[in-house]
Amino acid sequence: MSLFDELFSFAELQKILSDETRIQRMLDFEAALAKAEARAGAIPEGSARKIAEFCRVERFDLSFITKQAARSGNVPIPLVKLLTEDVAQQDKDAARFVHWGATSQDVIDTGMILQLRDALDLIDKDSARLTDSLATLATEHRATPVVARTWMQQALPTTFGFILAGWLDALLRHRKRLQECRARVLCLQFGGAVGTLAALAGRGPDIAKALADELRLSLPAAPWHTHRDRLAEIAAVLGLLTGTLGKIARDISLHSQTEIGELCEPGGEGRGGSSTMPHKRNPVTCAIVLQAAIRVPALVSTMLSAMPQEYERGLGNWHAEWETLPQILWLAGGALHHLAEMLPSLDVHKDRMLQNLEMTRGMIFAEAVSMALADRMGKMPAHLLLESASTKARAEHRHLKEVLREEPGLRSHLTPADMESLFDIRNYLGSAEQFVDQIVAHARSFVTTH
Amino acid sequence: MSLFDELFSFAELQKILSDETRIQRMLDFEAALAKAEARAGAIPEGSARKIAEFCRVERFDLSFITKQAARSGNVPIPLVKLLTEDVAQQDKDAARFVHWGATSQDVIDTGMILQLRDALDLIDKDSARLTDSLATLATEHRATPVVARTWMQQALPTTFGFILAGWLDALLRHRKRLQECRARVLCLQFGGAVGTLAALAGRGPDIAKALADELRLSLPAAPWHTHRDRLAEIAAVLGLLTGTLGKIARDISLHSQTEIGELCEPGGEGRGGSSTMPHKRNPVTCAIVLQAAIRVPALVSTMLSAMPQEYERGLGNWHAEWETLPQILWLAGGALHHLAEMLPSLDVHKDRMLQNLEMTRGMIFAEAVSMALADRMGKMPAHLLLESASTKARAEHRHLKEVLREEPGLRSHLTPADMESLFDIRNYLGSAEQFVDQIVAHARSFVTTH
Amino acid sequence: MSLFDELFSFAELQKILSDETRIQRMLDFEAALAKAEARAGAIPEGSARKIAEFCRVERFDLSFITKQAARSGNVPIPLVKLLTEDVAQQDKDAARFVHWGATSQDVIDTGMILQLRDALDLIDKDSARLTDSLATLATEHRATPVVARTWMQQALPTTFGFILAGWLDALLRHRKRLQECRARVLCLQFGGAVGTLAALAGRGPDIAKALADELRLSLPAAPWHTHRDRLAEIAAVLGLLTGTLGKIARDISLHSQTEIGELCEPGGEGRGGSSTMPHKRNPVTCAIVLQAAIRVPALVSTMLSAMPQEYERGLGNWHAEWETLPQILWLAGGALHHLAEMLPSLDVHKDRMLQNLEMTRGMIFAEAVSMALADRMGKMPAHLLLESASTKARAEHRHLKEVLREEPGLRSHLTPADMESLFDIRNYLGSAEQFVDQIVAHARSFVTTH
Amino acid sequence: MSLFDELFSFAELQKILSDETRIQRMLDFEAALAKAEARAGAIPEGSARKIAEFCRVERFDLSFITKQAARSGNVPIPLVKLLTEDVAQQDKDAARFVHWGATSQDVIDTGMILQLRDALDLIDKDSARLTDSLATLATEHRATPVVARTWMQQALPTTFGFILAGWLDALLRHRKRLQECRARVLCLQFGGAVGTLAALAGRGPDIAKALADELRLSLPAAPWHTHRDRLAEIAAVLGLLTGTLGKIARDISLHSQTEIGELCEPGGEGRGGSSTMPHKRNPVTCAIVLQAAIRVPALVSTMLSAMPQEYERGLGNWHAEWETLPQILWLAGGALHHLAEMLPSLDVHKDRMLQNLEMTRGMIFAEAVSMALADRMGKMPAHLLLESASTKARAEHRHLKEVLREEPGLRSHLTPADMESLFDIRNYLGSAEQFVDQIVAHARSFVTTH
Repeated sequence: MSLFDELFSFAELQKILSDETRIQRMLDFEAALAKAEARAGAIPEGSARKIAEFCRVERFDLSFITKQAARSGNVPIPLVKLLTEDVAQQDKDAARFVHWGATSQDVIDTGMILQLRDALDLIDKDSARLTDSLATLATEHRATPVVARTWMQQALPTTFGFILAGWLDALLRHRKRLQECRARVLCLQFGGAVGTLAALAGRGPDIAKALADELRLSLPAAPWHTHRDRLAEIAAVLGLLTGTLGKIARDISLHSQTEIGELCEPGGEGRGGSSTMPHKRNPVTCAIVLQAAIRVPALVSTMLSAMPQEYERGLGNWHAEWETLPQILWLAGGALHHLAEMLPSLDVHKDRMLQNLEMTRGMIFAEAVSMALADRMGKMPAHLLLESASTKARAEHRHLKEVLREEPGLRSHLTPADMESLFDIRNYLGSAEQFVDQIVAHARSFVTTH
Repeated sequence: MSLFDELFSFAELQKILSDETRIQRMLDFEAALAKAEARAGAIPEGSARKIAEFCRVERFDLSFITKQAARSGNVPIPLVKLLTEDVAQQDKDAARFVHWGATSQDVIDTGMILQLRDALDLIDKDSARLTDSLATLATEHRATPVVARTWMQQALPTTFGFILAGWLDALLRHRKRLQECRARVLCLQFGGAVGTLAALAGRGPDIAKALADELRLSLPAAPWHTHRDRLAEIAAVLGLLTGTLGKIARDISLHSQTEIGELCEPGGEGRGGSSTMPHKRNPVTCAIVLQAAIRVPALVSTMLSAMPQEYERGLGNWHAEWETLPQILWLAGGALHHLAEMLPSLDVHKDRMLQNLEMTRGMIFAEAVSMALADRMGKMPAHLLLESASTKARAEHRHLKEVLREEPGLRSHLTPADMESLFDIRNYLGSAEQFVDQIVAHARSFVTTH
Repeated sequence: MSLFDELFSFAELQKILSDETRIQRMLDFEAALAKAEARAGAIPEGSARKIAEFCRVERFDLSFITKQAARSGNVPIPLVKLLTEDVAQQDKDAARFVHWGATSQDVIDTGMILQLRDALDLIDKDSARLTDSLATLATEHRATPVVARTWMQQALPTTFGFILAGWLDALLRHRKRLQECRARVLCLQFGGAVGTLAALAGRGPDIAKALADELRLSLPAAPWHTHRDRLAEIAAVLGLLTGTLGKIARDISLHSQTEIGELCEPGGEGRGGSSTMPHKRNPVTCAIVLQAAIRVPALVSTMLSAMPQEYERGLGNWHAEWETLPQILWLAGGALHHLAEMLPSLDVHKDRMLQNLEMTRGMIFAEAVSMALADRMGKMPAHLLLESASTKARAEHRHLKEVLREEPGLRSHLTPADMESLFDIRNYLGSAEQFVDQIVAHARSFVTTH
Repeated sequence: MSLFDELFSFAELQKILSDETRIQRMLDFEAALAKAEARAGAIPEGSARKIAEFCRVERFDLSFITKQAARSGNVPIPLVKLLTEDVAQQDKDAARFVHWGATSQDVIDTGMILQLRDALDLIDKDSARLTDSLATLATEHRATPVVARTWMQQALPTTFGFILAGWLDALLRHRKRLQECRARVLCLQFGGAVGTLAALAGRGPDIAKALADELRLSLPAAPWHTHRDRLAEIAAVLGLLTGTLGKIARDISLHSQTEIGELCEPGGEGRGGSSTMPHKRNPVTCAIVLQAAIRVPALVSTMLSAMPQEYERGLGNWHAEWETLPQILWLAGGALHHLAEMLPSLDVHKDRMLQNLEMTRGMIFAEAVSMALADRMGKMPAHLLLESASTKARAEHRHLKEVLREEPGLRSHLTPADMESLFDIRNYLGSAEQFVDQIVAHARSFVTTH
């Protein structure tokens, strides 16, 4: 249990990525290998059963393995040695067939793929949960007016539903990407010492097929010891996902600023509070998601940098993946989980949204008035009129509508009713609601295909 | 023309990514927008025709635009201003409709997507060329023996065709990835000031559809101003591709070392030569590809880091993409091009491959002998016998086969014919050739779907 | 002239980093080498003079060099060839001594160091300008109250001078770092083909010394062809500087939000404006600085990744530096320049600062009251009293002071005068002003030592 | 104990970076704070003693703190709460003064600085050990001939001592850098809620001074909550160090290739061995160092990316440092330690170095002959003569010297004795030995100044 397990990630994912599970997945490989080889007639069935029986992490002294790994350069060498000795105590014949024809990298890579599958299942679940919440929320706030901000300055009105739908749309693309690469990534690694399965004579491909079946993994056209694009790909896709989570968190944290106050993370006992400053409710979930969004891109670059692995086994670059990919899973999965957990309870302050729309005293409607006038008096005169009225309104701290009403030239083009209409938020939301509908419909029809 | 254009990339791609083309693609957006708006009845057809007529980069003073862009923070603001003035000289009415309802980000993003499409077309072409060459070469060297190396140490025999097929297999996955993301990435950006298309009243979506048609881009469910996952995705996919190119270049450069000499980049006038060291033929293409493989991962991380863009328009993070994505295209496309260009002329020295297989005096067959003996005398005694024979052979600089022949215990298990067979490379290549066949068949049947 | 030259950087720096200057600095190396060799008696003085005469970039066809560089893998090979031919036209003897005993890497690396020196001079100048402005501004706003924000929520009062002094203090550290590494980085590269200066027989070190003198560079203990820590160090120091610039820009952009309005970048013709939204003044300088702060960290990682260069000359990793280091200079120097240019004209709205301090109706003084009461009634009762009063004030939209006044238990501990004092910003600024004074004094006494 | 603790790092460093030590250092801050406040007369001495007594990590339930931290967003909030309750059980008065005037960030940052100091002490020790070994080895191999390789091709002779001295020289620069930044980085963080020390009224600076004394840290001009350049700087300096370690490891691994065989990591029980391939001795230490060299650059970029922290406390970017900086220490310190441990036992095969010098049959002396002839017959004729002789030698697999002897034109310029001399390695080592001496002298006189 590390200090940041609960803060940056969550228990279920952390368990999948723990040392214990990592070793267990390596042992799962060894057990499945024995079974597959028995099925293919390469080793006796009894031996396979016996080996599989011993492939349980509880039987091993992890700290001993850790120490030995430092000498050999990887974990399976001492692990297989201990397993063989352990089996040999009961069945000398079976011991002969432990790890038969495999290499350490087969164990490490396939073990990692098995952990990856479990982690991706959790990520799928949380992705679905988050997109469901967003679809509900986007529908609810389909027409809730809020000011849109560009360059961190108030620009024009939009709807909060449109903002939510934007988040949702991006997340749906990530779910699609995860599906596409899942099939490619979740595949067996099994090639023996140099990828040729030489030690298994001609039976290699049959055993590989049986082994893939045992582990419910797809079977690649060939072993891929120094071709790491699959692992780098899942890292990149998780990097993309985290980028969007970071965008959502950044938006929430900006909308939650004291001076803006449109959103607020849920409170509750000890949550984001401060012992001495009773007015504070800190956006803790945003902080967690943003830390992931800052860290994951660099970790993805590490996975890409590690790709040019030498010859038939990499030196150092392969080792560089061992902690990096789990960290990406841990951070991306953790950020997703915390956001999915928090989002349904997000406080939305529609009153503050309306107040903020009023803050510039009509300035955010300048474009609308300008466009309306352009049709009637030409673009340039319209623009100049608005510019001077805006300057005046700002200088005198008055509402733009009021200042414009005093413009003699304007009355001939716009009636008082026109003016009311132009300064009505509802009339300048463009197609925001239609976009919300399209995206929510897409979300509702999204089908998980695996 | 920059100093490294030809060295790190190539003219055709460089042209697509030039300032001139960049501005032209922005102007293409403006022209298509006018046409689409005319089609939708939003502006007069004559005005649209007039606007389109002026959308040619030759009409603009780029250095003036560059200077102005520094004040406004982007290029379209001065560009649209100049275009409007230019059109106005001939047709005041038409000038009113320049850039109608669009925002600068629409122009920049869609312009970039158009450049991207052209660049991806080049990358597709070079990918196909490279995989074709590799399929041919892998077939030719399907059974050419070469030593496999792990941890940069000689390990066991394999075939050179298997090494080539590994490169090929990875590249085929990249071609698939490029196809999958192409459809997602090549889509229109069009949302107006804040993504709602408010200035176009209800006609926004229709115009967007017509505009996508004009530009032959797909139409997204909604504008995506601050959702940059598509651009980051293509960056990541190119990062994956570059990683594999780097792996190939690293392998070639290692096989080309003076002391190994199994491969050699083609020579030719001035190519990789040294004026004072006549024995040198430097792997220039490998250097180019490797520099890309070192630089692109970090640039991908920049694209991911830039994803959390604020509200409805990012501040700084959006700007961070403007040079980064083109650089990724430039480096990845350049590396691919140079490798595709060089590979068909790669010198393969089969004699040196055979020599190197002999270098350890039979040691690389120790595993084969050990496996054969294990079946007959048990795994442990076999291992011990091999270990002592190997130590002896190494100490006395003799061939392992010769030392083993003197072992009295061995004769009862292995006949002289067995021994010859065990030390025959051809008998310890495992399923290498079958893997080659599978991958080449896959390459031959690869279909480009767009 | 590239599209983003003026936007992301500035003309003077851009000139230093241009292709023309790059070649000129390589030629400066060749000229100085000839002179140094003449001084050491290794070549005739007349030849040296003749060579130096021809070392002018205007004499060369850059696009021809670019094309040739793609074949040889670097620029000096064709450059030296052309220079030799050029000299030979006038003086065959002199031509023999062009590039005498040097290798391409000597030319490239020393040329880069010369560009670096000029770029660092500009950076020094702009750093000094920026810290001067900040010292002035910090003094002016030494006691200007503003709310401090943590987790992007209002926390307690501070002074704007303290914020400015924090920026200043960090920048002074960067100036110190730049001085420290300057001496280490600005040194000669001169080693010949493999770093031994073998072609110069025993005269190598003497010539190296003379060459360093000629170029006013320091002389390292030995050539450093594949030891790139100096270049990576300057990259890292510029990365640190850019991080602080990014922090300043992020702060300014946050303080400039419409809803906060405490700061505003200066306006002026076309500056940060929007043609259709007259209320907008976009923080253009912040955007430029932030884009640099997003891009530079990844470029620094590239310089670090490129460090493990093979043997006596790197393959690809050396090449990876050629564009990366100039880009870092360009971005860091550009961001610094734009910020130094803008800062003296930054609009500071003290009225909005005061308004925002009032926004939470006294909540930001809760800690002050709580600390005062803790001394008199114990920490826990004080905390509970404040908590309940704060909840009440928030619920009823009343001022905390007002609610507290109604608390019967409070009167025995705090007089009305105490209360006024506790809710007076001036009494809860801690040592902010003292910190400002310390930092400004440090700035005033900062001495540039080179 | 994690799976990779021993492999990628080592126990002593791991202990410093453990969760337990991290909490202990936070408690050290609380204890020292109480003492400093007592010294300054701000709290009773008895209370300070009592608080200090309870500041021991064994008293706390880490897994409970971990869970609570997820709600509050950081560790000190629950930690201080538990500490206060714990103290209160024995001394209610003392409990009032726990964490007096401090903020969570003071605790976290200063705690980290304390860990950093201990880690840097280990790194200093290992750096000294490594440079000492290299100085010894460089002296020993000052004149040991080995071929220098550029572009991974044999180039000219050099000495192995020169290669070692190059590694040494770079490491000495890193030791200097570590000293320079140590003083800047190891400083107190203490600012209270927003950096003004407001809760301590005017006594803040005095308490800060006493606190810095207590912890033996330097006192900065002001608190630095959102100015992270110091932490990013130490990260960058460790990144530079790791880059050089990676360069050394890359060189060792290249020199250790089966086909080159000039170097070999020490063997020993289980070290780098393979159970089935008796001829292998894998460069395990190189793999460990190289994995660090691949991972650290990206982690440094994370520290730089995290620098633009918002206002007076960062959101997410601060959190991003919490695991990143320890990982950098862990990887850099681990790589350094493993290399320092291995280097003194590195096997150097001088015989293979000589053999490899002969591999190109005299080609590596072509430059030497060419330079000698140039003086006598002109540069161009000399070059042409060598070129044709080299081509002939290569085609006929003969020694260059032998082929040259048959050249009729050559005899008039070079006597047989000249020829022998030109093909004598010892005569073409340039100033290699002098460079070794200079660097070793520098190493011997290096003084650690703290």
